[in-house]
Amino acid sequence: MRADARDNRERILTAAEQVFGRSTAASTDDVAKLAGVGIATVFRHFPTKVELLEAVLTLRLQRLRDTARELAGAGDPGTAFYEFFSQVVAEAGSKLAIAEALGAAGSAPGEHARQAGLEMRQAFGELLARAQRSGAVRADAQFAEVYALLVGASRGATATGLDLEVRDRMLAVLYDGLRPRR
Amino acid sequence: MRADARDNRERILTAAEQVFGRSTAASTDDVAKLAGVGIATVFRHFPTKVELLEAVLTLRLQRLRDTARELAGAGDPGTAFYEFFSQVVAEAGSKLAIAEALGAAGSAPGEHARQAGLEMRQAFGELLARAQRSGAVRADAQFAEVYALLVGASRGATATGLDLEVRDRMLAVLYDGLRPRR
Repeated sequence: MRADARDNRERILTAAEQVFGRSTAASTDDVAKLAGVGIATVFRHFPTKVELLEAVLTLRLQRLRDTARELAGAGDPGTAFYEFFSQVVAEAGSKLAIAEALGAAGSAPGEHARQAGLEMRQAFGELLARAQRSGAVRADAQFAEVYALLVGASRGATATGLDLEVRDRMLAVLYDGLRPRR
Repeated sequence: MRADARDNRERILTAAEQVFGRSTAASTDDVAKLAGVGIATVFRHFPTKVELLEAVLTLRLQRLRDTARELAGAGDPGTAFYEFFSQVVAEAGSKLAIAEALGAAGSAPGEHARQAGLEMRQAFGELLARAQRSGAVRADAQFAEVYALLVGASRGATATGLDLEVRDRMLAVLYDGLRPRR
């Protein structure tokens, strides 16, 4: 891909993330306008809206994966784990909206999004293991239920349209449950 | 409504709950067969599939409301609260599937389902208040976040297709978070 084509692709993706984060009913035309490119350019990179949504979802999962990997590499393990957990929940609304828009369009997340999701879960597993070794998360919690709590908190925050204070209080209860028993 | 018409309505609803609990893609015809009535009888009571789905959803919410009210009237307040919480999460899968089928049919839950949902939340609030007075749930937890945790646990259990052991371990972590700090 030539440099200017790559630039365009990134500008379209950045714009799409903003536009679809507000409303998945937004059109490819809205994305083109915000990106400052013609609609033909959008269609050259992403022939359908589903492909564009899919690319945005993949980008977000990859970014979460990268954050988890960075956090796993440095700093206090407990802080890293709870910080990442909170970030996933905070960003869940627009991510779930995109995944649901894909579902509504009759399209399951494709190979790239699934791969990024898998890598994100692996990186989250690393964060969990480190936090457990350091004593910040109870040792008897297994990945499956901690991941279910992450998914649940994300969906709970989104489904009930939580304001930020309630979301933080919800997470505080959950984190108390995840800390070792005294 | 005549007694035999009322019987038919109840048989249809019971059958619909079973049939749609397995797959919301099931047809009204499947419901008629299981109920042992003609398809015309189903359509007389429920002119559209949306109305039938809506009636099933309302029935389930009313039943949960009744369970919460019964539990609030007798027995140990802590046991009652945690038992009800677990029951909602256990039944979440098919209930959410029905709500989503309604959404996919472009129909929001109607007046009856919303009223039943409201009454269920109120009864859950009673259970919570009693459990907090008895010291089984931390006093600083407010209804909003406890309800968000209930919704989240329900959706987490459903979205990740949890097996029963993982679900129970997820709830154990959550309940530890809800118990008073020592």
